Amino acid sequence: MPRVVVDVMLKPEILDPQGQAVANALPRLGVTDVSSVRIGRRIEIEFTGQPDLDRAREIADKLLANPVIEDFSVRVADAGHAEESNP
Amino acid sequence: MPRVVVDVMLKPEILDPQGQAVANALPRLGVTDVSSVRIGRRIEIEFTGQPDLDRAREIADKLLANPVIEDFSVRVADAGHAEESNP
Amino acid sequence: MPRVVVDVMLKPEILDPQGQAVANALPRLGVTDVSSVRIGRRIEIEFTGQPDLDRAREIADKLLANPVIEDFSVRVADAGHAEESNP
Amino acid sequence: MPRVVVDVMLKPEILDPQGQAVANALPRLGVTDVSSVRIGRRIEIEFTGQPDLDRAREIADKLLANPVIEDFSVRVADAGHAEESNP
Repeated sequence: MPRVVVDVMLKPEILDPQGQAVANALPRLGVTDVSSVRIGRRIEIEFTGQPDLDRAREIADKLLANPVIEDFSVRVADAGHAEESNP
Repeated sequence: MPRVVVDVMLKPEILDPQGQAVANALPRLGVTDVSSVRIGRRIEIEFTGQPDLDRAREIADKLLANPVIEDFSVRVADAGHAEESNP
Repeated sequence: MPRVVVDVMLKPEILDPQGQAVANALPRLGVTDVSSVRIGRRIEIEFTGQPDLDRAREIADKLLANPVIEDFSVRVADAGHAEESNP
Repeated sequence: MPRVVVDVMLKPEILDPQGQAVANALPRLGVTDVSSVRIGRRIEIEFTGQPDLDRAREIADKLLANPVIEDFSVRVADAGHAEESNP
C-alpha cells in the first residue's frame, strides 16, 4: 500500500521534558553515552492511489503539527527499507 | 552528531482512535483518497560517541515502547537524507 | 463555557513505558517516595450549549480512546475547582 | 494508595492540531454542538507515603511539562470521586 510518513518533532529550541525524563532515566540502565533524547510523533498515511506528498504536507500543516512549535517532514515510505525491528 | 531514530507504532491489529480522528477529519479538507492514518512516536537519541543500535534497542524496549501493544524499529539516522521539510 | 473533561488512561494491567521513564528519572531529582507514574491523556471538550455527557462518552469511545487497552472517564468540569496551577 | 494528579494542557494561545482534528471529525458522528477540543496529558503519581504536592509540582515542572508552552495543575486525587467511567 502506498504510504507517506510524516515526522513531527518539537523545534530544537523548545524544551522536551518527556525526552528529558527518558534521558535522565538512562544512567539507571547503565547507559552513560547518550547526550539527548527527543520524543516526537510519526504519522503513517495510506493513500488509496498514488501517495500524494503535497496532500500529506497540507494534512500535516493543518491537523498533525503546530508549525509555531514543531517542525515536520514528509516523505514517501520505501517499501523494503533497512530498518531493524523488534521480533 | 551521531543519532539513532526509534519509531514506535501501535501494532497493526490495535485500533488507533487518534489516527482515526485525523482520517475522519480529512473529507472536510477535501481529501478523499486516504484510507488510513496511524499516529505513533518518533524518538531521536543522540550519542556522545558512536551511535549504538543495541543500546538504543534496549532503551526502546524498556523506556519507549510497550512490546505487547507496540512495534518499534531502530536505525541510525542518515545525516543528509532526502526528507522534505516545512520551511 | 460549559466543558466536559475526558480522562483516558492505559488499563492498569498495561505497561506504561513513558510513565516508567519518568519514575526511573526521579531518584536523580532526589525523589525516592514515588512508587508509580502513569501518563494518560486529558481531553477538554467545549460545547456551544449545555455540556452533554452522553455525547462526550460517544466521542471518547470512537475518537479518543481505545477501549481494549484504555479506560476513560467523562465528567462535567467544575468552573471553580480547587486545582493548584503553576503561575 | 495516595495519588497526585497532574494535568498538563497546551496554553490557550497555542494551537492544538490534534484536538482540532478531533473537532473536525465530529460532524461525521452527527455532533454539531462542540466548539473546541483540546488534548493534553494527565499524569497519575503514586506516593509510597503521604502524597506530596510540592514534590509533584517540582516533578511536573522538570519532567512532565514545558512551562513555556504548557500550563499544568497539581492536585491530590480524591479516592471516591464521582467521575463516570466506561464499563
